[in-house]
Amino acid sequence: MAVKKIAEITDQGGEADVNQLMENLRVVLVATRNPLNMGAAARAMSNFGALHLRVVKPYEKAYREAVSAVGASALMKSAEECATVSEAIADCALVVGTTAVGNRDVRLPLLSLPEAAREIRQRMEKSRVALLFGSEKRGLSNDDMSYCHWLLQIPTREEHRSMNLGQAAAVCLYELSKGEIGRSKLENGNPSTTEGKQFAKMETVERITETWLEALQRSGYVGARAKTASEEKLRRMLRRFTWEESDAEIVLGMMKKIVAKLMKD
Amino acid sequence: MAVKKIAEITDQGGEADVNQLMENLRVVLVATRNPLNMGAAARAMSNFGALHLRVVKPYEKAYREAVSAVGASALMKSAEECATVSEAIADCALVVGTTAVGNRDVRLPLLSLPEAAREIRQRMEKSRVALLFGSEKRGLSNDDMSYCHWLLQIPTREEHRSMNLGQAAAVCLYELSKGEIGRSKLENGNPSTTEGKQFAKMETVERITETWLEALQRSGYVGARAKTASEEKLRRMLRRFTWEESDAEIVLGMMKKIVAKLMKD
Repeated sequence: MAVKKIAEITDQGGEADVNQLMENLRVVLVATRNPLNMGAAARAMSNFGALHLRVVKPYEKAYREAVSAVGASALMKSAEECATVSEAIADCALVVGTTAVGNRDVRLPLLSLPEAAREIRQRMEKSRVALLFGSEKRGLSNDDMSYCHWLLQIPTREEHRSMNLGQAAAVCLYELSKGEIGRSKLENGNPSTTEGKQFAKMETVERITETWLEALQRSGYVGARAKTASEEKLRRMLRRFTWEESDAEIVLGMMKKIVAKLMKD
Repeated sequence: MAVKKIAEITDQGGEADVNQLMENLRVVLVATRNPLNMGAAARAMSNFGALHLRVVKPYEKAYREAVSAVGASALMKSAEECATVSEAIADCALVVGTTAVGNRDVRLPLLSLPEAAREIRQRMEKSRVALLFGSEKRGLSNDDMSYCHWLLQIPTREEHRSMNLGQAAAVCLYELSKGEIGRSKLENGNPSTTEGKQFAKMETVERITETWLEALQRSGYVGARAKTASEEKLRRMLRRFTWEESDAEIVLGMMKKIVAKLMKD
């Protein structure tokens, strides 16, 4: 039985590294209803060094209560309020949604927390990652999920899948902040797909989506009625690709030119 | 990135095994004050398959509230009430105390959660293990700790060590119930990018390249002279994407439509 102090243990993994990694995490609470849950999520974030909170469409009253609560953390007070999920993830290169039950409509990959954490840590070495939590009652909507690259599930008992928001946040952040960085790089047999590359921010991919959609409309591929459904499908598909930054810029330029030509004619 | 359902993942590791292990765990709440915290701990226990709760010297009122709360779990209702820590751990072969800050007076070994979980799982194969959580305000007393073989600490930020009881319970039980199932999978290489998906054949990607290139020419993005160089660049870029078969067919259809429109005008 090892009898190490935590300090020694984390030093091995490089505590500084872990904290720097967590600097690249944005925890996004979407449509949270209960101020206690919001506060609990913020507390777990502080425990595990995830210091950047964004809230999307919070229930106004709950949000005010959570921010003004006695003992509300600096973290809670400095939360960024966003009008849309799109805004909340704009500067992130990877967007991960949490789910208790998976989703049959949205065909997104579903990763168990331990492997999800490895993926996320690897991506946080280079770029910002958004981790989305949905409302207590309904979780993330299909629309919220259309912004996600994949979904993360905490492995729980089949008879009782659904976790409390604050507890789910604590478990995810615990796993993410674990100092296994050096190790995870070796274990993950395929670093080649991520190392040494700059990934596109989601705002670039979103701009591609918009321009691409316009090309589809102007070419008659998408009718006016089907616009919303097509937009969601297109967004999901484009996010499935692994966009390198330079590629994204090129494709955006191409699509703009095509749209310009379609407009001129 | 694996595209497996959690059910499949846990099946491989043997969900039954994990549950059997957890059958040997006794979660002991000592002098808990807040009924909400008690309920939260019970919920996390249910999520992670730790179904046996013991409460020692609970604040009477809090305990009654927690047990009689609307929606109190069967687990909460079947909690065993014990007069002393000694009674609560009597049938256990290993007693582990949780602590946020360690303890200078009690010279007990202090283990970080990941390695503590490994020890505990090993012991649960043979005998019952008690995991003690102290009161929200003071944690476990020196007297409580005197019943412990060693202490467990969740690795948190030095600036914010102390966790909420329900969240600490969730994190500990998550780690205990994990059974290292996810890990063993990723260690054998990286199944993530290949499993469960149908990938596009390169001939489909080549057809996308050709159609895409035509759109670029007809829109004026690519001049006649630069055609060969652009074609090569485009081909390399499109091959860098990870094309699922269905996505590839969709994009090909889109590009064909765009080209058709560009030709008509």
